[in-house]
Amino acid sequence: MALRTLSAKNAAVLDQELMTAGAFSIDQLMELAGLSVSQALYRLQPLSKGMRILVACGPGNNGGDGLVAARHLWHYGYQPTVYYPKQPKNELYQRLRKQLEDLKVPFTNDFPTALQSTDHIIDAIFGFSFSGEVREPFPSVIEALRDTKIPVLAVDAPSSWNIEEGPPSEGPGKGFMPDALISLTAPKPLVKWYTGRHFLGGRFLGKHMAEKYGLDVPNYEGLDQVVEVPVEGEGEKL
Amino acid sequence: MALRTLSAKNAAVLDQELMTAGAFSIDQLMELAGLSVSQALYRLQPLSKGMRILVACGPGNNGGDGLVAARHLWHYGYQPTVYYPKQPKNELYQRLRKQLEDLKVPFTNDFPTALQSTDHIIDAIFGFSFSGEVREPFPSVIEALRDTKIPVLAVDAPSSWNIEEGPPSEGPGKGFMPDALISLTAPKPLVKWYTGRHFLGGRFLGKHMAEKYGLDVPNYEGLDQVVEVPVEGEGEKL
Repeated sequence: MALRTLSAKNAAVLDQELMTAGAFSIDQLMELAGLSVSQALYRLQPLSKGMRILVACGPGNNGGDGLVAARHLWHYGYQPTVYYPKQPKNELYQRLRKQLEDLKVPFTNDFPTALQSTDHIIDAIFGFSFSGEVREPFPSVIEALRDTKIPVLAVDAPSSWNIEEGPPSEGPGKGFMPDALISLTAPKPLVKWYTGRHFLGGRFLGKHMAEKYGLDVPNYEGLDQVVEVPVEGEGEKL
Repeated sequence: MALRTLSAKNAAVLDQELMTAGAFSIDQLMELAGLSVSQALYRLQPLSKGMRILVACGPGNNGGDGLVAARHLWHYGYQPTVYYPKQPKNELYQRLRKQLEDLKVPFTNDFPTALQSTDHIIDAIFGFSFSGEVREPFPSVIEALRDTKIPVLAVDAPSSWNIEEGPPSEGPGKGFMPDALISLTAPKPLVKWYTGRHFLGGRFLGKHMAEKYGLDVPNYEGLDQVVEVPVEGEGEKL
């Protein structure tokens, strides 16, 4: 049975409601989202199988989740490297970056070189608010993610995919199918076309909000901030 | 070998440094601290052994940690009840309370009655900034914590203990020895007199900060936000 999905529009409305009526701060939500991402990566890539993690961060909240995940991964014992070519003048993102710099986590602007010495990649470039064209410098990065043999974990959406309509039929993301996806709060409609391993994260949704938005609260186990769910996608568009 | 401790004064300085030069927000730090507390409780009291958790929250940041812990415990499947008799007009604490209210977590002002129907208690009344006298309405609450047979997990300090000098020689906290203690970031000097189970939490301290403050970074395992450490206390004062 497929989990119910959250449209791009409703994802934005839900986020806004969590931060107004729900009284969460974006710091809190991003901390818990990034923590979920780090836990999914830990399941996919135990430390014994390779510690080098390349975290590709985009300019918005998806990139912020990536920054938080990189910090937790460092604390678990991984060696994260962060690619963050377009950082807006946003106080929160600047603070998350500073927290990484204080841990001596390296930042790079050379994605192709970083790709040659990593064991796993986190795609935190675009999330549920993405639409339209992939702008520079990301087209070549997404092509590299599509073509690499190194496993990729995408955050909330494979970057360049349309949130409602799934994989693009042209452009750099055509044919991009990351090995794993972590959907935050709830899957987005694009999961219909997604065929890799699928995790859910963001263990902060109460029953009232889930019901209001027609979502399922997944069965997290124990202390886990992440749960693996069955693959749903048919991949018919690819 | 005893872990190095952090004095009350240095704990305040370290917190301040994390939030200025360290670029953390209090929302972030409190979220991670409360998450640690919830994980320690989970180890002490598996869901199968009783789900009712009474969280006693004081007016400061220790109480805030308790509010965050209560929320995570709810998500794990526990039934927290919160005693929070002195809530200051602080926007963060108000938000943390609202997040619990939205989950229908009950708040009570009747501690003795709540104590009669709980399986475990979290003492989040006073933390490392406590000194001097226990003010109303907490003396009778601390006496009840001292006298109850229900297990108590104290956050950062058994409430009413002097951070540097340990258990009080008079007053409501005389003879109070909670079953477990979770020290956040680092143990405080009072652990010298503490003889229960001891956990460390707050997995956000980097090597640089640990060295600067003369602290040990404990060996957390896997994804854990908490680690149990050997008991150090001699309890000689009790």
